[in-house]
Amino acid sequence: MMEQETSEESEQLRAANKPNELALAYHARYTGKIEVSLKAPVTSYHDFAIWYTPGVAEPSRAIHQSPERVYEYTNKGNFVAIVTDGTRVLGLGDVGPEAALPVMEGKAMLFKYLGGVDAFPLCLATKDPEEIIKLVKAIAPTFGGINLEDIESPKCYALLDRLRAELPMPVWHDDQQGTALVLLAGLLNALKVVGKRLDEVTLSLIGAGAANINVAKYLHLAGARWAEMIMVDSRGILSPARVDLQGEPKKWAICEKTNREGRSGGIPEAMRDTDVCIALSTPGPGVIRKEWVARMADEAIVFAAANPVPEIWPWEALEAGARIVATGRSDFANQINNSLGFPAVFRGALDVRASGITDEMCIAAAYAIAGYAEERGLSAAAIIPTMDEREMYVREAVAVGTKAIEQGIAQRALTAAALEEVVRAKLVGVPSKTF
Amino acid sequence: MMEQETSEESEQLRAANKPNELALAYHARYTGKIEVSLKAPVTSYHDFAIWYTPGVAEPSRAIHQSPERVYEYTNKGNFVAIVTDGTRVLGLGDVGPEAALPVMEGKAMLFKYLGGVDAFPLCLATKDPEEIIKLVKAIAPTFGGINLEDIESPKCYALLDRLRAELPMPVWHDDQQGTALVLLAGLLNALKVVGKRLDEVTLSLIGAGAANINVAKYLHLAGARWAEMIMVDSRGILSPARVDLQGEPKKWAICEKTNREGRSGGIPEAMRDTDVCIALSTPGPGVIRKEWVARMADEAIVFAAANPVPEIWPWEALEAGARIVATGRSDFANQINNSLGFPAVFRGALDVRASGITDEMCIAAAYAIAGYAEERGLSAAAIIPTMDEREMYVREAVAVGTKAIEQGIAQRALTAAALEEVVRAKLVGVPSKTF
Repeated sequence: MMEQETSEESEQLRAANKPNELALAYHARYTGKIEVSLKAPVTSYHDFAIWYTPGVAEPSRAIHQSPERVYEYTNKGNFVAIVTDGTRVLGLGDVGPEAALPVMEGKAMLFKYLGGVDAFPLCLATKDPEEIIKLVKAIAPTFGGINLEDIESPKCYALLDRLRAELPMPVWHDDQQGTALVLLAGLLNALKVVGKRLDEVTLSLIGAGAANINVAKYLHLAGARWAEMIMVDSRGILSPARVDLQGEPKKWAICEKTNREGRSGGIPEAMRDTDVCIALSTPGPGVIRKEWVARMADEAIVFAAANPVPEIWPWEALEAGARIVATGRSDFANQINNSLGFPAVFRGALDVRASGITDEMCIAAAYAIAGYAEERGLSAAAIIPTMDEREMYVREAVAVGTKAIEQGIAQRALTAAALEEVVRAKLVGVPSKTF
Repeated sequence: MMEQETSEESEQLRAANKPNELALAYHARYTGKIEVSLKAPVTSYHDFAIWYTPGVAEPSRAIHQSPERVYEYTNKGNFVAIVTDGTRVLGLGDVGPEAALPVMEGKAMLFKYLGGVDAFPLCLATKDPEEIIKLVKAIAPTFGGINLEDIESPKCYALLDRLRAELPMPVWHDDQQGTALVLLAGLLNALKVVGKRLDEVTLSLIGAGAANINVAKYLHLAGARWAEMIMVDSRGILSPARVDLQGEPKKWAICEKTNREGRSGGIPEAMRDTDVCIALSTPGPGVIRKEWVARMADEAIVFAAANPVPEIWPWEALEAGARIVATGRSDFANQINNSLGFPAVFRGALDVRASGITDEMCIAAAYAIAGYAEERGLSAAAIIPTMDEREMYVREAVAVGTKAIEQGIAQRALTAAALEEVVRAKLVGVPSKTF
């Protein structure tokens, strides 16, 4: 991780922005990133009489008699479907299911490398929400959980809500819960660094998509006041005056309970004097301007988390006076990185065989992430762990699983110690090819 | 492989029928059989800036501009979906999608171990053929091919026909093409051993399900005469007198062109005096009786291929006078083993990027299998290769791919030598965990 305090370093960062150039060559070299491998040994061809016919009829019969045993005799309990319709891929928009596949394979790679989860991409040639719901329910027998990915809003809300209600397994939309929980973890620690309290600050929220709607919800669950949040979408600040939003229930609820001051206007008006600015809007740079950051409160915190390019370059925000800047990028400090969330959340949920992933489980994950970073020391350029802090994933997965057990939605009620042992076994020694 | 010539050895075989007992313990020990693994290296956490955001946006953009490049930057070209509704699982019948999963994971294991294909099971919670067609078409963007598995007839016919017509990729129903091509390979060699010609023999076909309907078709494509085939289903021998079958097009076509003698009756009447009996009906033993085998022609060939238990035990058929007996079992000689077919058929079809799998490609596969076995020497107990003859898969995949190129349905027109190199690279060193 680099820090970006001066213009000189900023230049280096811009020059070092190489991953895009390497990506085409690397993807072509390996023809993709994931494969399906044998999990059990084949010591001779005779073993197929056990793994396949005739032996395999025995576990099939056993599962037919007791459906729960599918978790014992198959990998169902560790399979997660990564489902997308390709309508909102990274910052690229609606590029379709084929163009979404490199991203979904990358997601599967992260699921395995960081969480020991066997995730498989399903890029769909349909955008119809009813068809997607029907399809996900139809494929559910193979999977222990469902990860919705890069699906446009407002469609994604209904998809997530319906599938959570209708499937007895973890269902997750990373752009909703995942981003929100990791961002909350980062903000909890950023506030510690600047010495402010979440229940006292004012917050501007730039963007009113799936991610930021959920951020607002989690901020509130963690103590922030609705009245002190100011959210802005592409047509201006949300308030009861925004009658154009009466048909969008999630946004209208925000209109009604936020923005105590009754501000109107655009991004600069939303940001003015706030302690915290959380942008999850459209790729920058230039979506947020330096002068707008300059007019925030002292010790301002700016999370510019659009991918693949933040709403404002971090060096610009710092030059404009922000004390702490976070982005979604792995090549800058303070990455609001969804990869800190979903691998461990699923690990914990799968290992206790939770029937779902509740908001409370997500908040527990956020506190686990923040707590881990605090223990190893906070600074303005280190408010949140990085992906290589593997021990954090163990802590987070145990927190998530334990919360599920507390809430009575776990099929396996393990002690924290027993759960930690199970989790640790899955997170250590994740296989990676050596070349 | 064991041979079974005497009653003593028969007893040993019965005693050695252990795979069923081991299967539960092994499946529970490993909690299933396949996993999703990294195919590309992760040398440091910074590599995720290439494999995931921001770098991954480049291949996504490139694919959005040129959809064909999905084969270059992702694993789509080697992914195959194993799709089942669980309505006809092995010999177990309609046990549902969860109970089908151990079998489908086993199939995926075979796909990888034998064909280097990354197959993923999708066990569906719907039996509705229109929904299954819609679903398979919806998930197609992720996959290079579709393998339908263990779906009941007559539904499977329409599913296969529709999906072959509507998807521009290999679509396969192993119970139709797979069984038929491997069985044809075995029969070609069995006839060589007994010195009879396919275009001269009479054949009884026990069972009129998806497998045997396709067997009849492939036998005819390879030279057998329709008039000399006698097929029998659970209600008797097929003939124009079977007006109950007028509503089932595939079976009615058989009624009209087979059974020159106009036989009626059941299995014994169908088998009497025939040179070849091919049973793909219901699990035995006792479906075919010794005395019925005794009344076949001299040098009779009996393929009792029901799974998991053949229609007649091989030792009984041999004792009754059959010269050559084949079953579907890996623990007996002459296994009519679908695993000799689909891994190499898909390998060949995927490596030339064929837009489908034609019957001609399947017949080419059958001749490649039979030719390989003949070269290394035939006998009554060795009419067909076994799974450990890896070189056969190379030969077969090249034959399949070459036929696709000949037929003008391949996107990649390679020379046989170039194709062999591509195939060999995928079939050698298939990873298997060591423990």
